[in-house]
Amino acid sequence: MNPSWNWDDNGHTEVHDPRIGGAWWNYLFNDSVYLRVDGYGNGLSFNREPRIQSWGRGQRQLWLRFADGACWCPSGWPIPQPDGAQWRVIHAPCWTRIIGRWREVEVEWQALVPRQGQREVWTVRVRNLGRQTQQLGITSALFQPAAGFMGSQGYWDDQHGMMLRHDFPHHAAWDDYQPLSQCANWLFVAPTLTPDTWAACDRDFLGASPPGAVPEGVRDGLPSRPAALEPSCAALQYQVELPAGDVWEVSFIAGAVVHPDQAPVADLLAEGAIAAEQAALEAAWEEEQQRLLISTPDPDVDRFVNTWWKKELLWEARLWRNGISTPWRNELQDAMGYAIFNPTAAKPFLQAVTAGQGSDGHLKVWNTRAGEKPNHPLVNFRHNDGGIWLIICWCHSIQQAGELSWLDEDLPFADGGSAPLIEHLRLAMEESFADRGQHGLIRMHDGDWTDPLNGPGRQGRGGSGWATMALAYACRLLQPLAAKHRNTALAERCAAVADELNATTNEQLWAGDRFAYGIDDEGKRFGDHHDGRIWLNAQSWGILSGSADEQQAATCTASVKQHLATPCGPLLLHPSYQGWDPQVGRLSLKVPGSTENGSIYCHSAAFWAAAQAAMGDGNAAYDTLRRVLPSNPDNPVEHSGQAPFWQHNAWFGNLSHPSFGRSSGTIGTGTVAWGMLIAVEHILGVQATVDGLVIAPRLPASWPQVQVERVLHGCRYTVDITADLSPGSPPQLSVDGQAVDGACVPYQQAAHCQITVHCAQAGRA
Amino acid sequence: MNPSWNWDDNGHTEVHDPRIGGAWWNYLFNDSVYLRVDGYGNGLSFNREPRIQSWGRGQRQLWLRFADGACWCPSGWPIPQPDGAQWRVIHAPCWTRIIGRWREVEVEWQALVPRQGQREVWTVRVRNLGRQTQQLGITSALFQPAAGFMGSQGYWDDQHGMMLRHDFPHHAAWDDYQPLSQCANWLFVAPTLTPDTWAACDRDFLGASPPGAVPEGVRDGLPSRPAALEPSCAALQYQVELPAGDVWEVSFIAGAVVHPDQAPVADLLAEGAIAAEQAALEAAWEEEQQRLLISTPDPDVDRFVNTWWKKELLWEARLWRNGISTPWRNELQDAMGYAIFNPTAAKPFLQAVTAGQGSDGHLKVWNTRAGEKPNHPLVNFRHNDGGIWLIICWCHSIQQAGELSWLDEDLPFADGGSAPLIEHLRLAMEESFADRGQHGLIRMHDGDWTDPLNGPGRQGRGGSGWATMALAYACRLLQPLAAKHRNTALAERCAAVADELNATTNEQLWAGDRFAYGIDDEGKRFGDHHDGRIWLNAQSWGILSGSADEQQAATCTASVKQHLATPCGPLLLHPSYQGWDPQVGRLSLKVPGSTENGSIYCHSAAFWAAAQAAMGDGNAAYDTLRRVLPSNPDNPVEHSGQAPFWQHNAWFGNLSHPSFGRSSGTIGTGTVAWGMLIAVEHILGVQATVDGLVIAPRLPASWPQVQVERVLHGCRYTVDITADLSPGSPPQLSVDGQAVDGACVPYQQAAHCQITVHCAQAGRA
Repeated sequence: MNPSWNWDDNGHTEVHDPRIGGAWWNYLFNDSVYLRVDGYGNGLSFNREPRIQSWGRGQRQLWLRFADGACWCPSGWPIPQPDGAQWRVIHAPCWTRIIGRWREVEVEWQALVPRQGQREVWTVRVRNLGRQTQQLGITSALFQPAAGFMGSQGYWDDQHGMMLRHDFPHHAAWDDYQPLSQCANWLFVAPTLTPDTWAACDRDFLGASPPGAVPEGVRDGLPSRPAALEPSCAALQYQVELPAGDVWEVSFIAGAVVHPDQAPVADLLAEGAIAAEQAALEAAWEEEQQRLLISTPDPDVDRFVNTWWKKELLWEARLWRNGISTPWRNELQDAMGYAIFNPTAAKPFLQAVTAGQGSDGHLKVWNTRAGEKPNHPLVNFRHNDGGIWLIICWCHSIQQAGELSWLDEDLPFADGGSAPLIEHLRLAMEESFADRGQHGLIRMHDGDWTDPLNGPGRQGRGGSGWATMALAYACRLLQPLAAKHRNTALAERCAAVADELNATTNEQLWAGDRFAYGIDDEGKRFGDHHDGRIWLNAQSWGILSGSADEQQAATCTASVKQHLATPCGPLLLHPSYQGWDPQVGRLSLKVPGSTENGSIYCHSAAFWAAAQAAMGDGNAAYDTLRRVLPSNPDNPVEHSGQAPFWQHNAWFGNLSHPSFGRSSGTIGTGTVAWGMLIAVEHILGVQATVDGLVIAPRLPASWPQVQVERVLHGCRYTVDITADLSPGSPPQLSVDGQAVDGACVPYQQAAHCQITVHCAQAGRA
Repeated sequence: MNPSWNWDDNGHTEVHDPRIGGAWWNYLFNDSVYLRVDGYGNGLSFNREPRIQSWGRGQRQLWLRFADGACWCPSGWPIPQPDGAQWRVIHAPCWTRIIGRWREVEVEWQALVPRQGQREVWTVRVRNLGRQTQQLGITSALFQPAAGFMGSQGYWDDQHGMMLRHDFPHHAAWDDYQPLSQCANWLFVAPTLTPDTWAACDRDFLGASPPGAVPEGVRDGLPSRPAALEPSCAALQYQVELPAGDVWEVSFIAGAVVHPDQAPVADLLAEGAIAAEQAALEAAWEEEQQRLLISTPDPDVDRFVNTWWKKELLWEARLWRNGISTPWRNELQDAMGYAIFNPTAAKPFLQAVTAGQGSDGHLKVWNTRAGEKPNHPLVNFRHNDGGIWLIICWCHSIQQAGELSWLDEDLPFADGGSAPLIEHLRLAMEESFADRGQHGLIRMHDGDWTDPLNGPGRQGRGGSGWATMALAYACRLLQPLAAKHRNTALAERCAAVADELNATTNEQLWAGDRFAYGIDDEGKRFGDHHDGRIWLNAQSWGILSGSADEQQAATCTASVKQHLATPCGPLLLHPSYQGWDPQVGRLSLKVPGSTENGSIYCHSAAFWAAAQAAMGDGNAAYDTLRRVLPSNPDNPVEHSGQAPFWQHNAWFGNLSHPSFGRSSGTIGTGTVAWGMLIAVEHILGVQATVDGLVIAPRLPASWPQVQVERVLHGCRYTVDITADLSPGSPPQLSVDGQAVDGACVPYQQAAHCQITVHCAQAGRA
């Protein structure tokens, strides 16, 4: 067992050392609320309706005062644990539990977000493990935002039986009153037990002590007086006589509402209601989880595919990553990832983005969530990849759903009118294809997937290799669907467009040992001998697009290995820009080794893994993926800082810096969608398609035997795969004990279907 | 001596109890940098050029580690003092010094801002008071902002001999690079001694400990490795062998620059340079301070007039209160206050605002500092008082300067062209006067002095009583200046306008026992029996304007006493609005008792004191002023929370709330300008005018003898006043021993002039 943390028997992360994992966050959420919580009980809460709003300062404290005056915070924050005290934290998909033990008292402090309602629930359980009755003062404090310009008021409300805090949003115009009064301007904290005393502001709870002191309200008691204007906190205090062996329990339901009468608490105040909600929450999650399960020799990959990538995809897709202004390429890929285990649930999120497409086919990339104010300057710029992702993500999702009929569904355009989805996709292709420069590449404009690449095409002439390759890839996904849809013209057009784009790519960008990234407004190519750089995405998508022939693909692979490979996965580009380069623009100002300027960008690493899988090399694809997992053994969490259960965005990529390999710490990455696709469909090779389940494993050499379970069209497929055929052999299938020809199993009517597969060894199909 | 704090012999605030005064802020600044610092050494730093920018997170830590491993922060933050340790803090006009003592070691930690340069200077002095040599680890850490979107890098730079931290501002457009590269994107911390070890980020200094733990870097040493992307801090560590009786000293110069080569440190790195700068800084301040000194039986009033109001006025006027989007009525009044002790220095700030006036006479109230982005929504609205304040503040300042010739100076208009100042003021008067509604009152539009009063006039018809009265007051100030300027037409016009406005006020707003505040768009009056309210400003300005005759003034005074008087001074209005009232608008949403919704708004209390003084009641004016001073004995700082050396904005005014009397905590208030004017000119009655020094004391009954020193036109006037004449007697003056007739002393050629005054007792002229 790792001394600082381990996976427990339930697949939950158990943290023992606050120095390593105290600040690791769990993400708890439903469709209208999102809470992130770390091992100290800290972390922000957000509601989603009527607009995204945080209802706390992300700080919570739980304190016990013993009869002799000794004070203890079982979470170890803000005061470290006293000698002899124990601390551990369990992060599960549906809750986080902090467990402290001192002086024969055990405290459990658990957070969960119920299935419904804008609220978080914190439960405190105090157990007397000793032989003496304990007299305990127990204080819970949730820190709320500081007062806004209009002032705030906090108090215990007897009528509602809860702490209330009101703060009207800052505004200027008289007319703003009506809409703003419909915001969730009231915060509530409803306890299951009426407190003995309370405080409503920092001053009354903390007093004037420094952060390292015991709060005055814990030491001396809470004054039970209303607060005005001060930074608010809802502190509730209980005097508890706890006989030996007894357990005392209280829960707090906190959230934000338009009016206190609407505080969603009644259903959870009944005896046992919170335990019942927790059971229901876990059951609902279990049902989602069971739709796709894998079992491989790598338990880390299993955990991510089965549990944590799914959880991250749910957060990304259903909550739009909690974003206000976001690039819709994210939303599209998130929905595509969601579709891998629940295509029906994912579909509305694809549709929502599609409704932003113009009838000219253009889909703006950076947009702002309806009802919010833009909070990112990129919304004012033109990126070239909206339509490309629209095609890619719909095509993959249609395959996952096995529903060719989705192409017929009528969807609106942003500027009025509507058309079947297939026409949306055709328009996206044509609009993107038409936007080529003299060089034949798709124009760069203000950036492509690489958002901060605002230099090369700013005058409207520069071309993006990546976008050109990605559109070819999109065409290659759309072409077979169009053909099956009996839209021969479109299928032929897709093939022709892809061929032309690939020819252009080869003509303009092939640089002997790599694909260059693009051509700037002055006609100067970059990502080749001109600037001595190599860009990972150009190699990945040169292969995915079909531009690269086998020899070129092998050459690209060798170049990636030579220039970009690190123990933490492939660099996005190398060497990093060391300062302003007017050719590439904003990217060059990012810290060398960070994000787009040469990190190991996990999303991009997943593209590379997809290219490796497309070349048939499951072994290499697996190696790439595992290096960007938080479980990469060459980059332990003790160094990387990354919570082991969430997929992060990037590793710091400056090899000569002591921070090399540090995690960006951010979640919300396209890595999870692509990782899921590559792991399940390209490596394990259990592919959901419009024709049925296609079996094409490319197992790593170290994986002699694996199992995949997928629920598709109401049938649970259990696919047992053994890699025991000689290299190069096609897979041999049997379905429910019957040998079948080929690799495609049509969808079955039964509730369960057993597929047994023998395939080639050593990671190559 | 107050056990928690006291004034020391130098007039500095000395704080002994961190629970009372730990978080009290001092404000240290020069024209290009502003640092606020509390008793823990915390507080934000801002540079002013090229734009307002904070260069820290407002947190600083100083630690000592003893040879036995015991660790101590002498500032008491973030860890409280150990048993037996001492802590005190001295706030002086030019520096703040934190002094800790433990284990026979004394540490002084002092902050100052040099006269020039965007930098703060922290000096650490460690004195071994014991008999043994001490082996000490000494660590200073300045916490810098978290990394922005573009990432940040921090490291020790050997070449420059300083910690450096670079972070390029977030932006989107390629063209943004050039201007943003001219921002102060580099932070530096230059020590006078090269550190033994260092850290550049929180992780390397704090480790993963909670706030209440000793930082890992203090306990275990700093790793001396560069940081990337992490929240930055500049931590410098020294291993010091300190013999008995010895003192060890180091200083840190911190700031923000465009390029590290420009870091303004060289002049302060020489031996003794910082001590010399401190002496020069204090001498410069002393010179400013000496321009106006009073000595009364109330040492609190003396301290504010002589020192702390001046300091606050300097901050307000010279730094524009560190504001980005601000109401220019503030800037005008701040400059007017500055003019009371240094009119020549104040003049450019009045001119800067005047340059924003249109050639139609209109001066928009809410504006944004050049080069900044608006950060307040009120910039989009129309307030009616810009031109009114322009007249009031110029007239008062011209009297202070004794320079009628300022009226001739040519000043530009915002929309081109220019005119003599007197024409600017005439246009302001005419434009304001023309903006009257059917009722004859100045139209309210989106608000007047009372910013959030956006209900009554939102449709363009409602009228503001306050603005009507204030314009009349402005006319009464301009009229004699115009007459002296031999602009008879303007003088007559001023008188006529004032008379007409005052007649209107009486006709429309006199409500028997009070002046109503205004009339809304529907023609409904408010601040009378309709809504059962009384507004302080309507009474104050009803008197100041001359609308009120003696009987009305007495009636208003009685009503204020009956409805608005509290131990903390008069309420702004009563009763407070308890929720949305569409008639008054935004104001009604503010927490009852806060700011414009019924606080004791000190600025408005000062207007009331001015009205009391205008009625000749120095006793009452003094009583009003002292109740809104932080030194109000009926509202001790232990309750109010207000640092005793800065004038705050408001006391919380809800009499039935336990927070009644709490300070808003904010500085930057027009109170200081008006308080200075009232104290020096209306109560002490030593008035600078264009005719000479006018003596018109209205001393409080408890002030038998006072002294005022003013430097005017190069002559220092010492005015000794004894209130020993019978009530109603005119003052009797002698100048340099010669009795003179009348109350006006023409400005003298000598370097010094002694004026002796005998005046009436008991606060009434």
